[in-house]
Amino acid sequence: MENFTFYSPTCFVFGKETENEAGSYVKRFGGSKVLIHYGGESAKRSGLLDRVQDSLKKEGIDFTLLGGVKPNPRSGLVYEGIDLCKKEGVDFILAVGGGSVIDSAKAIAAGVVYDGDFWDFYRGKRIEKALPVGTVLTIAAAGSEGSPDSVITKEEGMFKRGASGDAIRPKFSILNPALTQTLPAYQTAAGITDIMAHLYERYLTNSKEVEVTDRLIEALLLTMKHEGPRVIADPNNYDARANIMWAGMVAHNNTCGVGRSQDWNSHSIEHELSALYDCAHGAGLAVTMPAVFKYEMNHNIMRFAQAAVRVWGCQMDFEHPEVTALEGIECFQKFLISLGMPKNFEEIGAKEEDIPKLVEVLCRGDGRQGSISGFVTLNEEDCTNIYKMMI
Amino acid sequence: MENFTFYSPTCFVFGKETENEAGSYVKRFGGSKVLIHYGGESAKRSGLLDRVQDSLKKEGIDFTLLGGVKPNPRSGLVYEGIDLCKKEGVDFILAVGGGSVIDSAKAIAAGVVYDGDFWDFYRGKRIEKALPVGTVLTIAAAGSEGSPDSVITKEEGMFKRGASGDAIRPKFSILNPALTQTLPAYQTAAGITDIMAHLYERYLTNSKEVEVTDRLIEALLLTMKHEGPRVIADPNNYDARANIMWAGMVAHNNTCGVGRSQDWNSHSIEHELSALYDCAHGAGLAVTMPAVFKYEMNHNIMRFAQAAVRVWGCQMDFEHPEVTALEGIECFQKFLISLGMPKNFEEIGAKEEDIPKLVEVLCRGDGRQGSISGFVTLNEEDCTNIYKMMI
Repeated sequence: MENFTFYSPTCFVFGKETENEAGSYVKRFGGSKVLIHYGGESAKRSGLLDRVQDSLKKEGIDFTLLGGVKPNPRSGLVYEGIDLCKKEGVDFILAVGGGSVIDSAKAIAAGVVYDGDFWDFYRGKRIEKALPVGTVLTIAAAGSEGSPDSVITKEEGMFKRGASGDAIRPKFSILNPALTQTLPAYQTAAGITDIMAHLYERYLTNSKEVEVTDRLIEALLLTMKHEGPRVIADPNNYDARANIMWAGMVAHNNTCGVGRSQDWNSHSIEHELSALYDCAHGAGLAVTMPAVFKYEMNHNIMRFAQAAVRVWGCQMDFEHPEVTALEGIECFQKFLISLGMPKNFEEIGAKEEDIPKLVEVLCRGDGRQGSISGFVTLNEEDCTNIYKMMI
Repeated sequence: MENFTFYSPTCFVFGKETENEAGSYVKRFGGSKVLIHYGGESAKRSGLLDRVQDSLKKEGIDFTLLGGVKPNPRSGLVYEGIDLCKKEGVDFILAVGGGSVIDSAKAIAAGVVYDGDFWDFYRGKRIEKALPVGTVLTIAAAGSEGSPDSVITKEEGMFKRGASGDAIRPKFSILNPALTQTLPAYQTAAGITDIMAHLYERYLTNSKEVEVTDRLIEALLLTMKHEGPRVIADPNNYDARANIMWAGMVAHNNTCGVGRSQDWNSHSIEHELSALYDCAHGAGLAVTMPAVFKYEMNHNIMRFAQAAVRVWGCQMDFEHPEVTALEGIECFQKFLISLGMPKNFEEIGAKEEDIPKLVEVLCRGDGRQGSISGFVTLNEEDCTNIYKMMI
C-alpha cells in the first residue's frame, strides 16, 4: 500500500427534514452573512429554498441569493458570485442543489479571497484558502458534498476543468434523501451512473495488494446494483434513496480510494462530451465507460475479472479469464441501460464528425501534451478509437 | 434508514516512516507544550519514542513524558496525567501506543479542562471540551485513533466504563503499519479479533434496509478474513499489516455503522472479563462472541445467515436457514482459533465460580438496572447462561 493522507472533516447531517437545521450549522461554523447559491426554479417551487431561508432567519443570520447555476456550471456565474460576495460582505457560501451548484459555490468561495483570476485554480494552482462552504444536497451523484474538488466549464473555449484543495471541503453537508424523490428518473439514473463511475475510477489501479480498498469499492457497487433498480421502480422508496445518497458520498470522499493509483480516464474522456453537447455527466459516462473499459481491459484482465465475479456475480472462466472480464463489463452496461441510460453517441446527441475536435481538446487543450494518463496512458489515436467505439 | 450525523474530522497520516511527521502535525493543530503519553518499554526500546521526540524538537515544540499505561488502562494514571498537565501547562496530548494509551490520553485531555472528577464522563456525562489529542498508533485493534470514545477501568470496584464526545476525537492520527510488525502473534490476533468485533457489533441491527452499511461491514470482514492468516503466517508482510490497520480505523470511526441500531452486548459482556482477569480485550472477545451470537441468533436468523453466506462463503440452506446461520458463527470461531485465539474460560484464566460476580457487576454495576440492551435485551439469567456457554 502506498503512503497517503485521508482527511474528511465535513460534518454530515443525514435524514428526513434535516434541511431545517441549515441555519444552526451555518452558525456553528461561523457564518454571519450567507450567499445562498442555487440552480433553477425547482428549489423555489418545492419550498426547499424557503425552508432553508427560514432556518437562517431563525438563527438571525443575514443572507443574499444567487440562482441560475446550470448543469456543467460555467465560469460566468462564478465571476458574478465573486463580485456579489465582495459587494455584500458575504462570509459563508451555502450551496442548495446538486454537484453543479456545489462546485460553483466552491469556485466562488475560493475566488472571493483570491487576488487573481479564480480560473488559475482550474489550471492547476492548489486552493489554499476559501470562504467556508456548506451544502444542502438535492441529487445523489457527484459526491461534491464530501470532496475537496470542483469542476467548472470556461465558456471561452468550453474547457471543462477541475480544481482541488482541503479549503473548499464543505464544513457541513445536509443530506435528506426525501429531497431526491421528486427527481425525474433520467436524472436519478444519471446520478447512479456517476456514483458507480467514481467507484470504477478507483477500482482501476496499478497498485497491488490493497484488499481493503477493493472490498470497500465492491461493497458500494453491490449497494448500487441492489438499490438502483428499486429506486427506478419506485421513486418514493425512501430507504433505497437513502442507501444511494450515502453510498454516493462515501464513493467520493476517498474512503474507498486510498493507498493506491486511480484511473479517471473515463471522466476525462466524458468531460469533453458534456462540455460540447451539454448532456448529463452521468449519461455521458454511461456511454463512455464500457468503451474505455473494453479498451483498457487487456492491461489487467484479472482486475476486470475480479469485478465481474465479485460484483456482477459472473462465474469465473479459469481457462479464459478474458471472457469473464468482458462479461463483467457487459453486465455493467446492461445494468445502466436497464436504468434508462444511453448506450451510444446518438443517444446523447454526439456526432462522429466531431471526434477529431473532441480528441484535440481532450489531449491538447489547456496545457496537455497529446495524451491523458490513468490506469493506462491514452494517446490521441487511443482516444480516437475509444470515441469511435461509442458510435 | 434512521437519521444520523457522521463526523470524523481526524486527519489520518498513513504509511511508512510517518511517525517522523508527528511534530509538524502537532504544530499544525496548535500544540506548543506536549504531553507524550505511552505504555511500557517497547516504545523506548524500538526507538519510536526517540523518533517522535526528535520530530517535536525539530519544530521547536517543548514536551514532557508520562509512560506506564497498561492494557485496560486505569483511572490512577489518568489522575496523575491530569495533575502533570496542569503543573506543566500542557496544551496538547500526544498518545504513542495502542488503544489503551489513546484512551488514557483522551481521559487526561478531558480531565485537564474539567473542574470536577474526570470519572463523571465515564458515568454518562458527555465530553464537550478537551485539550487537543494526536496519536501515533502502534497496534491495529481498538480503533480509538478515529473514534470519539475512551474506555477506562476504575481501580476501586474494577468498573470498566466508556465515555464519549467529539472533543476527544484525535486531531490527527499517524498510522505506520511497519510499527506493528514487531508485535507478538497473540497481540496481533487479539487486535484482529477486536476489529472484527467492532464490525459484528454494527452488523447486528434491528433496523431494516440499510444495505450500504451491511455491505461496508461485510467488505471489512472479508478483508480481515483475507489478511488475518497472511499476517500470522508472515508478521513482516507490510501490505497485510497495512490493510488490517486501515480496516481497523474504518471499522470503528462509524463509516460502517450509520443509520441504524447496533448491538455492543459482546463488548459489555467481555469488559467484565478483561476487567477481572486482565486478559487481552480481543482474546476475551474471541471467547465471548460465539456464545453471544449463538444466544442471540434466534432473534434474527436471516441476519446471521446473510453473514454466513456473504462473509464466510457458506451455502445457503433455504429449508433450514438456522443451519446456515449457525455454520457462519462456527466458521467465525474456527477462524479466530486458527489465528491462535482462545475458545473458552480456561484459556483466558476465567473461572466458573466467578460467574455470579461477573453478572452482578455487568447487570447491576454503576447504575444499571438488571440488564444490558443491544440487538436483544439480556437480563441476569441470560448473561449467566451466556457466561456458562463459554466454560
